[in-house]
Amino acid sequence: MNHLRDAIRGVPDFPKPGILFRDITTLLKDGRLFQQAVDLFAERYAPRKVSAIAGIESRGFLIGSALAYKLGCGIVLIRKAGKLPAPTYTETYALEYGEDRIQIHRDALSEGDRVVLIDDLLATGGTMRAAVNLLKHFEGVEILEAGFLIELADLGGRKQLADVEVFSAITF
Amino acid sequence: MNHLRDAIRGVPDFPKPGILFRDITTLLKDGRLFQQAVDLFAERYAPRKVSAIAGIESRGFLIGSALAYKLGCGIVLIRKAGKLPAPTYTETYALEYGEDRIQIHRDALSEGDRVVLIDDLLATGGTMRAAVNLLKHFEGVEILEAGFLIELADLGGRKQLADVEVFSAITF
Repeated sequence: MNHLRDAIRGVPDFPKPGILFRDITTLLKDGRLFQQAVDLFAERYAPRKVSAIAGIESRGFLIGSALAYKLGCGIVLIRKAGKLPAPTYTETYALEYGEDRIQIHRDALSEGDRVVLIDDLLATGGTMRAAVNLLKHFEGVEILEAGFLIELADLGGRKQLADVEVFSAITF
Repeated sequence: MNHLRDAIRGVPDFPKPGILFRDITTLLKDGRLFQQAVDLFAERYAPRKVSAIAGIESRGFLIGSALAYKLGCGIVLIRKAGKLPAPTYTETYALEYGEDRIQIHRDALSEGDRVVLIDDLLATGGTMRAAVNLLKHFEGVEILEAGFLIELADLGGRKQLADVEVFSAITF
């Protein structure tokens, strides 16, 4: 996976001074590398009888929907509050300043569903923590794993996710 | 494509009274229908030597990235202003109240690229108009088509896009 790691660009001082932003667009725009990244997840999950991928808006949709397509399962959306039109569950999570809310449709999943959550980046883990909590509103839905393209290991996000399996393709 | 059309849910009065929102989540969560929808685009574009899919944030990423995966080409991102970390081109477009801005990385495409733009919905066409304008900043990049999952034909969005080919899988 080193060639995938090498394809990620570090952008200094984004979104603010002192932050080195890990930019996945340089990987995504290379068709061969994008396919390899998706296949890495697809090979991991193909034996697991996944019935749905839950993608977290909006970069989680990029790996998530290609993965769902490859696995032949549905893609369900976890979005910022106010964007989903039908009845939802909502979870609130802390940001550096203030808080944010994410939602999922109440009919997104059904009893017996086996779900993999996908996002691009595991940093402090706040968003994925809220996403796991969202899925816990559903009776009889199993969370197989939370999968990330990138993990920033120093930020300790895994500690927030002690109750789920966590996989990351690339670690910084 | 009638079964794809039938899988789209109409949600009345969203995002505001009098609007019937066409909700694609009911199609996306059905693995078989999602695959059929992506394949419909993939079969259309497979003979066209597409080198990149440009997906428009964020629902355009859902069909766009699965399509790029299937075609083996890259997915490049058109995002709301302020989210892309490296140098960008920017276009402004009118909303009902005020305006909005979208951006693309200046290194997203190269001379000789053959691009299909993908979004979920063609309504008034303002967003896709701005996206086409964004791509015109690149020298030697060919726009093959603007592809949509849904077209709301009454809103006349095609008139805004007279200089590009337009395809929609489902029309209301």
